[in-house]
Amino acid sequence: MQEQAERLTRLSVPELDEILGQPFPVLDDGFIRVVDYMGTDASIVQAARVSYGAGTKKVHQDRGLIRYLMRHRHSTPFEMCELKLHLRVPMDCWRQWIRHRTANVNEYSTRYSIAIDASQATKSSEWRLQAETNRQGSEGILNTEIGEKLSRQEKELQDRARQVYNQRLEHGVAREQARKDLPLSTYTEAYWKIDLHNLLHFLQLRMDEHAQYEIRCYAEVIGHEIVKRWCPLTWDAFLDYLTSSISFSGNEISIMQKISQGNTDAAKEIAKSIGWLKFDENGKLKKHLERDEFEDKLDALKLPIPW
Amino acid sequence: MQEQAERLTRLSVPELDEILGQPFPVLDDGFIRVVDYMGTDASIVQAARVSYGAGTKKVHQDRGLIRYLMRHRHSTPFEMCELKLHLRVPMDCWRQWIRHRTANVNEYSTRYSIAIDASQATKSSEWRLQAETNRQGSEGILNTEIGEKLSRQEKELQDRARQVYNQRLEHGVAREQARKDLPLSTYTEAYWKIDLHNLLHFLQLRMDEHAQYEIRCYAEVIGHEIVKRWCPLTWDAFLDYLTSSISFSGNEISIMQKISQGNTDAAKEIAKSIGWLKFDENGKLKKHLERDEFEDKLDALKLPIPW
Amino acid sequence: MQEQAERLTRLSVPELDEILGQPFPVLDDGFIRVVDYMGTDASIVQAARVSYGAGTKKVHQDRGLIRYLMRHRHSTPFEMCELKLHLRVPMDCWRQWIRHRTANVNEYSTRYSIAIDASQATKSSEWRLQAETNRQGSEGILNTEIGEKLSRQEKELQDRARQVYNQRLEHGVAREQARKDLPLSTYTEAYWKIDLHNLLHFLQLRMDEHAQYEIRCYAEVIGHEIVKRWCPLTWDAFLDYLTSSISFSGNEISIMQKISQGNTDAAKEIAKSIGWLKFDENGKLKKHLERDEFEDKLDALKLPIPW
Amino acid sequence: MQEQAERLTRLSVPELDEILGQPFPVLDDGFIRVVDYMGTDASIVQAARVSYGAGTKKVHQDRGLIRYLMRHRHSTPFEMCELKLHLRVPMDCWRQWIRHRTANVNEYSTRYSIAIDASQATKSSEWRLQAETNRQGSEGILNTEIGEKLSRQEKELQDRARQVYNQRLEHGVAREQARKDLPLSTYTEAYWKIDLHNLLHFLQLRMDEHAQYEIRCYAEVIGHEIVKRWCPLTWDAFLDYLTSSISFSGNEISIMQKISQGNTDAAKEIAKSIGWLKFDENGKLKKHLERDEFEDKLDALKLPIPW
Repeated sequence: MQEQAERLTRLSVPELDEILGQPFPVLDDGFIRVVDYMGTDASIVQAARVSYGAGTKKVHQDRGLIRYLMRHRHSTPFEMCELKLHLRVPMDCWRQWIRHRTANVNEYSTRYSIAIDASQATKSSEWRLQAETNRQGSEGILNTEIGEKLSRQEKELQDRARQVYNQRLEHGVAREQARKDLPLSTYTEAYWKIDLHNLLHFLQLRMDEHAQYEIRCYAEVIGHEIVKRWCPLTWDAFLDYLTSSISFSGNEISIMQKISQGNTDAAKEIAKSIGWLKFDENGKLKKHLERDEFEDKLDALKLPIPW
Repeated sequence: MQEQAERLTRLSVPELDEILGQPFPVLDDGFIRVVDYMGTDASIVQAARVSYGAGTKKVHQDRGLIRYLMRHRHSTPFEMCELKLHLRVPMDCWRQWIRHRTANVNEYSTRYSIAIDASQATKSSEWRLQAETNRQGSEGILNTEIGEKLSRQEKELQDRARQVYNQRLEHGVAREQARKDLPLSTYTEAYWKIDLHNLLHFLQLRMDEHAQYEIRCYAEVIGHEIVKRWCPLTWDAFLDYLTSSISFSGNEISIMQKISQGNTDAAKEIAKSIGWLKFDENGKLKKHLERDEFEDKLDALKLPIPW
Repeated sequence: MQEQAERLTRLSVPELDEILGQPFPVLDDGFIRVVDYMGTDASIVQAARVSYGAGTKKVHQDRGLIRYLMRHRHSTPFEMCELKLHLRVPMDCWRQWIRHRTANVNEYSTRYSIAIDASQATKSSEWRLQAETNRQGSEGILNTEIGEKLSRQEKELQDRARQVYNQRLEHGVAREQARKDLPLSTYTEAYWKIDLHNLLHFLQLRMDEHAQYEIRCYAEVIGHEIVKRWCPLTWDAFLDYLTSSISFSGNEISIMQKISQGNTDAAKEIAKSIGWLKFDENGKLKKHLERDEFEDKLDALKLPIPW
Repeated sequence: MQEQAERLTRLSVPELDEILGQPFPVLDDGFIRVVDYMGTDASIVQAARVSYGAGTKKVHQDRGLIRYLMRHRHSTPFEMCELKLHLRVPMDCWRQWIRHRTANVNEYSTRYSIAIDASQATKSSEWRLQAETNRQGSEGILNTEIGEKLSRQEKELQDRARQVYNQRLEHGVAREQARKDLPLSTYTEAYWKIDLHNLLHFLQLRMDEHAQYEIRCYAEVIGHEIVKRWCPLTWDAFLDYLTSSISFSGNEISIMQKISQGNTDAAKEIAKSIGWLKFDENGKLKKHLERDEFEDKLDALKLPIPW
């Protein structure tokens, strides 16, 4: 590490500097702004190379090295980059957000200040139906006629809750208590700072189709508008190795070996032995969650389902 | 560490076993129950002694060693104990709770299940007034006449919010979206697991008189009903060294030296030099937050205020 | 969650209680002992179900639920279990161990006490050769003739280092300074406490064939002797979904689709477009690390390599 | 928070930019260099003010606000600043360093590369004597005659260890195994990134007189040369409230109240009741560690010791 004596200037990313402070709107009244950042794709490479000494500088190209790190889940070099955002987000969404513990947070205090006078409003065309197969998701949209009714009702409830809040304040009730019946849809703001490794973990979970729509909107802005500008090589590697990847278990690999060899019977035998192939009295294959997931993965690979 | 070959049985605390699973009520409809725990005062001592080798076993008595560790903020031995609680708490209070990041959490999911049908209700005698001096606190109680009006209004608002929630569900709206306008006072439940060091840090902040009343109620139950039974030596040391302690800054020490020596002028000189003694046009000492805090501390020690 | 009022007794695991305190030997003079634990497979299930409310108790069997959680990386329920070990391990190995940050540690102090009088010794048949393909691994064994020479030399060096250490102490040198030239192979001891989720992450990395031999020995004892007894359902799921699994990137999936359809040319086209198929002047396919890894994965699935 | 739409440029600190990349030498062959940073004193203020809303901007001056935050241990705003250092440090010292878990680390790998050819050397005048009162410290210096002997012996041992290392490599032994008997004094290098709150905690522990000399040298450079330039307001507050402060327990406060009131007998009564005043058969006050510490604190305040 001979270059230890060199003078440095801070690495910067012009593409990100260009949008610094500029709010990306999310939902009806939320936003995300980049407030500060530290590091670039080059910082990841630099940190990874401290493991290899100065002599090995040319061995990998930067892109290749970053892809190698991502592919093999070598996460510590990605921790060398840090992003600080200013967010405006409904409290209900923030409840999910804050579950990611490895981050630094300063939130707008409704003990100290009057609550932000805005709640997330739902348009008549935005009411989502409960998913039938996935107990914790939504699919499809309510018809707008009922939607209109629900949106009117929502507006009245939110207005009423704000009135009650204001009346409490007028009577001198402490802000920390007056806020107690504000709706979960009330907007809050926060500074949120996180390293790139933990941010990518957040994005992997929250850009996923199983994440709730609202937080997915935020995650997609962070990913496609911010990380993509900030660390483009890392972003590409993330998309390829983490969000588009498919993983097979030991059992699944055993079955796929038989499929590859054209031995459908042996494939079925394995599936049977691990309890995946049970039939009802009519000889119909019973539902089995893990088998369903496997069939989807075989489909994605254009491999035949052997049963 | 010659005893490495000995057989062990898990340490247990009969006083805590006795209340395992039993709910301590908190607020109007909340509770705390101990679900599991690991370690005792003896585990802390054992962990501290790995630093000293087997030969030094008798040097300190357990109590003295635990007090020494607490006094000098040697925190790692306290991390060897772990507590797991089951909580029922208003979401507004849980928002503050969850800010303590070094803990393990599984919360009741209102994406998956219907929200718990209970909101924190405020009695007519429980409406707290906004503190004048402390922008983020409360002091005093609203008169019950207005209190009654506010409690009635609260009940109506909470009932209305629940109605709206139920109607959305009846129309088939996804649970994850239907919940969006429930009040912050809605109860949630969670398992919460934390090590003793981080629990004491939580208690120090949340049993403090500046903490919001609601979370203070929970913290006091955890401290006085649970930790006291679980690790009584640690609990005593915590009360003596952390919750009852007073700390003086370098500047304050300089002033106190002069006070002790009866040199009031010199004490004032120092206070003046650091900007604590400024007067308005009428010769009245201007308010100064840090000086006020210092005066309170001198009072607590029965030392005279030199200005 | 109606059962909130029930009395509880701590969950325990007889298979683990049986070996509590008993040292499993590792390397020539190291060991691992379980000192305490909290939780069982049932605790994971309980924590996962808080998300689903009481009514859904029978929906999944425990085993199926644990496998579901592991498969979908729902990690928080596994954090509800905690394990505390007493270890004796060479400092060089401990250097790698301690890089896992989410754990609680108390280590034997060589500032306070005299260093443990034992260094890891290497038998003449245990000297490993530098791997050629993997710059940070080993493969094969040195011939025992040279091995004998190296083992003799090792013994002399370790004896000399201990002599120097003792002489410094005799001259009154502070322990914290006297230790400075002890070899990295000197044994240390520690209490190490970690939750099951983070322990499994440790095991996934340290049982891997790319982990250094010494730490792999410890990881395998923790996995196969301890976790297997402690949480057998979790252990099985871990082996199936994490240690035996294979993951494919977005690019790899595109190629596999073509292979499945028998379209070798299209598969090659994709590989070419992402830079995987480059030839030297003799028309020989150039080495490409990611392609090599992909070929190994195709082999594992018994799928043909299309180039 | 009306200013949400404003364009930003990254905050920078010219005083720190000036030394970016420049190594500060530590010990005989170590160094510390700042590689990157994020945030300034102003970022702390900004994060704290998100709690207060836009209207309260002028209430506190920056300096006063930072001092208030430090005094009351409001730590989250300090987490908004991040520092990244490049270090060269003996492994023995690094063992202590790495115990601070809330940091990001990439260390030079001696599995991948040949170990850095440098060990910390001790001059004949630098051998420290074991402290008598503090089992884990040093005080005073060995006479240089013996010191010379020890330094010679040290050099021989370090040379021998390096020879053995090199011979192993020449025989083809894997780097990961060859290194096993290198002395703990061997230098390593690392990138180390940490937020300001956790850095100050590190400095408080490692600049303390009870910290080992070697790590104290590093801590003092980080504090006085780096943090002081980077966040000067924070640094001043840290010195005043954390490193120079004295804290009194509940028991100690009770005694001091009596001292302040001139009631020596009552002060002694309290001390007796908590076991601090025990006498041997000759009527001599027995040693008591906590009482000793209290006497030192009374001395610091120029208060009389009442017994």
